[in-house]
Amino acid sequence: MFGLGHGPWGEAEWRNWGLSGWMEAEISLNALDNMPSALVPQCIFHCGGSSTVSYSYSSPLQDFERTTISTASVLEWVRLHANGSCRVVMVSSAAVYGDQGDIDATENATRSPISPYGFQKVAAESVCDCYSRFFSVPVSIVRLFSVYGEGLKKQLLWDALNKFKRGESQFFGTGNELRDWIEVADAARLLALAGLLPQSAYEIYNGGNEKATTRDLLTRLAHAYGYDGKIVFTNETHSGNPHRLTANNVHARRLLNWNPAVSLQCGLERYVDWFQSVG
Amino acid sequence: MFGLGHGPWGEAEWRNWGLSGWMEAEISLNALDNMPSALVPQCIFHCGGSSTVSYSYSSPLQDFERTTISTASVLEWVRLHANGSCRVVMVSSAAVYGDQGDIDATENATRSPISPYGFQKVAAESVCDCYSRFFSVPVSIVRLFSVYGEGLKKQLLWDALNKFKRGESQFFGTGNELRDWIEVADAARLLALAGLLPQSAYEIYNGGNEKATTRDLLTRLAHAYGYDGKIVFTNETHSGNPHRLTANNVHARRLLNWNPAVSLQCGLERYVDWFQSVG
Repeated sequence: MFGLGHGPWGEAEWRNWGLSGWMEAEISLNALDNMPSALVPQCIFHCGGSSTVSYSYSSPLQDFERTTISTASVLEWVRLHANGSCRVVMVSSAAVYGDQGDIDATENATRSPISPYGFQKVAAESVCDCYSRFFSVPVSIVRLFSVYGEGLKKQLLWDALNKFKRGESQFFGTGNELRDWIEVADAARLLALAGLLPQSAYEIYNGGNEKATTRDLLTRLAHAYGYDGKIVFTNETHSGNPHRLTANNVHARRLLNWNPAVSLQCGLERYVDWFQSVG
Repeated sequence: MFGLGHGPWGEAEWRNWGLSGWMEAEISLNALDNMPSALVPQCIFHCGGSSTVSYSYSSPLQDFERTTISTASVLEWVRLHANGSCRVVMVSSAAVYGDQGDIDATENATRSPISPYGFQKVAAESVCDCYSRFFSVPVSIVRLFSVYGEGLKKQLLWDALNKFKRGESQFFGTGNELRDWIEVADAARLLALAGLLPQSAYEIYNGGNEKATTRDLLTRLAHAYGYDGKIVFTNETHSGNPHRLTANNVHARRLLNWNPAVSLQCGLERYVDWFQSVG
């Protein structure tokens, strides 16, 4: 498995993550052309793109470049150099759904993003749809919900543990936001299955596992960490943050025989263990 | 009125087209930054993008760059440098509708493009929607149907007159394709009104005028040109070419008080006059 992406990465580290090679570059047609020529990929897992809603507000054009243009480059490279032999797995996001009300989103729901980040993911999905339909590039879209797990040094759980460590426990939001949590090993297995199993030319899968409100999640995290301060919320809301964002994941279960194996309780305990080992 | 775009253009020519300045460059954030700094535009008419369905099949990534990425660059430039004072008019296309069956498309119809070209226009519109919604950049989308008129040296009418001139009159298609023809002066006036009149932050307008089948159109064109050979069709069809693509243009009539002034008959006669003057 060969990797391409931005940021320096030492050989020991990328070998540890299971790669046989790593090329540091922005994802572009040119960079893809410069990969070792012996490579004829069976599948490209396209994980490029910014990963936060806030970045899409502060730097929308860069977010568009990282998310949408990089996707177009990958698809074009496959069209030109590996057509018919290579499937593209595009890591999309629950953000494409926006606010769907009090339901678990299904893959065929109308996409109605409520942040620039969600719009960029919709645009990237549309480019996949276009290349799949008109240029025979097979694609699996995987819409991940709230991914967490070892190695994640940002977002809610990371911030929360750092707050607990400092004896703080005030959080943004109402505490009632309902999200769908999926441990990184389950997410990775879903991507692998979506890339490697025989499927139709264009498939979309939700990747979520266990639902919890922010309040419930943080209470369980605090308990696992041994923090007993009172968790409080600012009661602020943000227009880009829907009240509920949860997955119906029946499609991936049925088509890929994917079964998430890590419960939220065990996942949180593992994450706390890892956090204590690194910091 | 200042212009920016690719391709060389002599000063006499761009002055003749009503510009006070012209900069030759691809439409990018960098090129926009290099425009004369005294310019604070009231409106940007974004006409960039490839203009043929066939190019979108042969060069999809370049088509994406010209159509969608250039649009994102224009919007980003307005966000950074002219926010609140400048409206963007994006020239979109009837191709976003795809095949809507036997109706005149209205602006709120579900977009369902059936060519990569249509997909790129949908993606460009979505970026406009995103910037309008989250970054206060006012936008008018104008979906032009079949534009023709003086200066157009490509597409059906140009090709047809050149065929007639050579004594040929066989054409691709069935002859029954129904299209909505709009003369370039009417299209230009629609763009100007969409850019300069007070409107909501995000508006979409169809630009079409008079419906005709390819057979009817070419018969009238041949008559205006004085060609009396028999017009025949190959009866081939192309999946990216819907049977009918016609506009309901009530929205532009009502909101902008736009009234197309050039009938198809007069427009065809004018076009023939112009063709004879240049060829």
